[in-house]
This record gives sequence, structure tokens and C-alpha cells, in this order.
Amino acid sequence: AAPQRLHEAMRYACLGGGKRVRALLVYAAGQAVGAATLALDAPACAVELVHAYSLVHDDMPAMDDDDLRRGKPTCHRAFDEATALLTGDALQTLAFQVLCDTGADTSPARRLEMVHTLAMASGSSGMAGGQAIDLAAVGNALDLEQLEHMHRLKTGALIRAGVRLGALASPWADESHMAALDVYASRMGLAFQIQDDILDVESTTEVLGKQQGADAAMDKPTYPSLLGLDESRDRARRLLAGAVSALDVFDDGAPRLRELAEFIVVRNN
Amino acid sequence: AAPQRLHEAMRYACLGGGKRVRALLVYAAGQAVGAATLALDAPACAVELVHAYSLVHDDMPAMDDDDLRRGKPTCHRAFDEATALLTGDALQTLAFQVLCDTGADTSPARRLEMVHTLAMASGSSGMAGGQAIDLAAVGNALDLEQLEHMHRLKTGALIRAGVRLGALASPWADESHMAALDVYASRMGLAFQIQDDILDVESTTEVLGKQQGADAAMDKPTYPSLLGLDESRDRARRLLAGAVSALDVFDDGAPRLRELAEFIVVRNN
Repeated sequence: AAPQRLHEAMRYACLGGGKRVRALLVYAAGQAVGAATLALDAPACAVELVHAYSLVHDDMPAMDDDDLRRGKPTCHRAFDEATALLTGDALQTLAFQVLCDTGADTSPARRLEMVHTLAMASGSSGMAGGQAIDLAAVGNALDLEQLEHMHRLKTGALIRAGVRLGALASPWADESHMAALDVYASRMGLAFQIQDDILDVESTTEVLGKQQGADAAMDKPTYPSLLGLDESRDRARRLLAGAVSALDVFDDGAPRLRELAEFIVVRNN
Repeated sequence: AAPQRLHEAMRYACLGGGKRVRALLVYAAGQAVGAATLALDAPACAVELVHAYSLVHDDMPAMDDDDLRRGKPTCHRAFDEATALLTGDALQTLAFQVLCDTGADTSPARRLEMVHTLAMASGSSGMAGGQAIDLAAVGNALDLEQLEHMHRLKTGALIRAGVRLGALASPWADESHMAALDVYASRMGLAFQIQDDILDVESTTEVLGKQQGADAAMDKPTYPSLLGLDESRDRARRLLAGAVSALDVFDDGAPRLRELAEFIVVRNN
């Protein structure tokens, strides 16, 4: 559909691979509380659209100025800066649009709560706020608490939102489930980020699909730079054990969420 | 609230003046169909937030590269490009967040329809799509039909959305009201854009609060460049007469909407 170039860039930015961790979390959390799979498609799309928009803007010259993402040229490289700017904008809008179309088995009140959850996680008190803190931190020393705060916003908020959106798609999720899922998501989100920082040191550009060593090159504060690699690995493992133990409230132990937590630390990109 | 610089830039971008035409349209349309004023605050905020985000991104070097907006330095000039990028992103998110908080007298189903209306108007088939067409048109000849199509998306979609959001805030709006309001908004939106094009030729940078002659300098297609000034003025007047005549279905003639239509052509910035 017209405008073709914009839509082409939008598809390029969100259908070009990626691990889909956030979408998988929506499905896994939803499954843990008995949500219908059909009711999970829209929230799973929505979190991935927000994630994709943030990558497009984050890669732009005004921000991280990256050339490579998911093994391909970044959006502004494959198209141009103006198109990348509009692509990110339109992907964000699409995320909210998609939430309005979610399955008929989800009530309007629940869908509105999904919109609210996604907005709170994405905006200036969530992901975008975390990116602002990240920008301000380049070249500055952060202590561990400040680093953790930044990551709780920058990547943690959207991961927690994904888990919550999955749970909101079920009419059966009770307060104890919601609380346990939030503990899981919060710990898992931090572990995910620590592993990201470790991979930026240890992996290769080819395996990562993005420039290896980019954090160090920009003098960004990371867990390995603050704690060293061994202590960072230890910390990720402890956080994941804590995330998994929060799943004990589920009769079946929420196997999908457990698998995802394990995937986080064994992944190599 | 932290992050301070981002929030400061967000306030700078949306509390720094402007005509608030879109917010006024929400209130005027809502009043025409008996909406409670309190139920209109959130949708009025939401359309202005989307408008403000689009201006911040539109002014950036990757797009129009403007230095002046509403008589002050543009956001990326007053702050920096990375902050402007995040500011636009976070203002868009806030627009959707605000719609979730609208008055308790608006049902979740209606609020969800508001989210959907705003998303459809803002995304790749609305405002962002119009901006993509605008970008592609720089230096290219558009005929009148293509120019009109671009403006229906770029500015028209959000103006129509504002009027519709106002009407959605009322439980009393029937189909004939909604249809009449949409005809009003559609004609009024085009007239607004024609007047914008005329002012870009005729006004001064001081009065406009933004660079006069910017369209011509970028070789953008405009109504005056296609039709000449006289025919452009005529066209705006005919569209406004058509917009106002659509208001005949309202017993009281919807005086606020009528006043806004008149303001559109007499305004000088």
C-alpha cells in the first residue's frame, strides 16, 4: 500500500529477523495463565513493533550511529535518515493500533489496560527515558545502582510489559500470578541486559549481527566494565535462578517461561 | 521527574505556544454533540501531543532542517538531535497514554475507539504516510490531485481525528452527526493547509514564528505554486463555506465549529 517506500522500510525493520524474545514472553506468560493463543497475537506484535521502532531510532546517527543490525544494514543505511525517522514513528503508532484489534475474547477494558501498560513501558518513564539516561551516561561514570536503574527502564520496562500483556490477555490471571510474573520479568530483564553486555565483549560481529565492541567503543558503562566478566556472569545466573523460582506459584511451573529464562543465558546473539 | 533533560525538552516542545487548533476542534466538536468538557481534556491533549511530536521530528535535519518554530529555536536546536528524537518518540507515546486516563464518563469501548482513531490518523496511512509522500515530492512536480492526497494524510487526517475524538467523548453523537462532522473536518482540514501555503508566501518569519518561504526554498509543491494566490484563496473560501454548511444538521448550528472555520482563513500565523 502507498506510500510504498515507507511501508517497505517498516517491513524491513520489523520482519528482518531478531530473536523475538519479547513476543515469546507474551506467549509464554499468556500460556502460563491460560490465555487463548489467538488473544496473544496482537500484544505479541505490539511489543515487537515497539522494540523494532526503538532499534531503528537508536541506530540513527543522532543516537548510536550503527551500520549493522540483525546482520543487515540498519534502516537509515538501507533507506535514508528521513525514512528511518518516519519508519520508527509509524512502527510505534502501529503498535498501539494493533492493540485495538486484539481478539474479541479480550474485553475493551482489558485492551485499554494493555494500551496503558505498553504506553507506560515505552515512554519517558520507561524505554525512552532509559535511552535518555543512556545518552547522558556516555563517557560518564555510573555506579552499579545507576546502571541498573538505566537498564530497568531501557530494556526492563518493555520486557515486563510483554509479560504483563500476555497475562492481561487471560481472564483467569489472579493477583498472585500477576505479582509472580512481574518478579520473573523484572529479574529476567536484568539478566538479559547483563548477557547483552557480556556478548558485546565476548562475541563477534558476525554472530551478533551487529557491531561487536560497540559499547566499549562509545565508552558506555556496562556490567563487565563495572564488575568484570566473571562477576557479571555470576550475577546473571543468580538473577535467572531468582526469576525461575518466582514461577513456583504456577502448578505446572510455567515451563515456557522457564525455557525462555534458560535461553537468555545460553544465547550467543 | 527524571530523566530531567528529556522531560524538559518534552515540555519545551508542547507547552511553548502554538494555536492549539486541533485541541480547539476536539472541544468544539464535543460541545456540538453534548460531550462533558471534562471528557474532552484527554483527547484534546492527545491530538496536540501527536501534533507536537510530528513538529519536533519534522524540524530535524534529516527532514526539513528548520531552526525556528513558534518563534523559538526548534527542539533539536534548543537541545540536541538525540534528545529531539527521543522527545518526539516520548510525546507520541504520551498521547496514547493520556487517552487511557480520559474521564470515567467515557466507556472503555469508546476510549479504545479513540486510541484506534488516533492511531489510524497518525500512522503510515495517515500523518506519517503524508510526511513520507511530502519527502518524496520535494523537487518533483505533483498535480493538484496528488497534492491534495498528500495533505489529506499529512495534516487532514489528524484534524479529522480531532473532530472525531471530540464526538466520541459524547454518548449522544448519532451517525448523522458523525457524518456531518467528518465532512466539516475534511473540508476544513484542506482549507487549513491551503491557508498555511498562502501564509508561507505572504507572511513574515516574525509573524509566522517559523521561517517564511521555507516551502519555496525547499521546492515543495504548494497550492499557490500550482494555482496561484488568487485561485488558492478562492479555493480555501469555497472549502470553508462547504465545511460550515455541513454543520446545518445541528440545531444550534455548532457555533464553536463555525468560529473555528472562520478563524482558519483570517489567521495570520
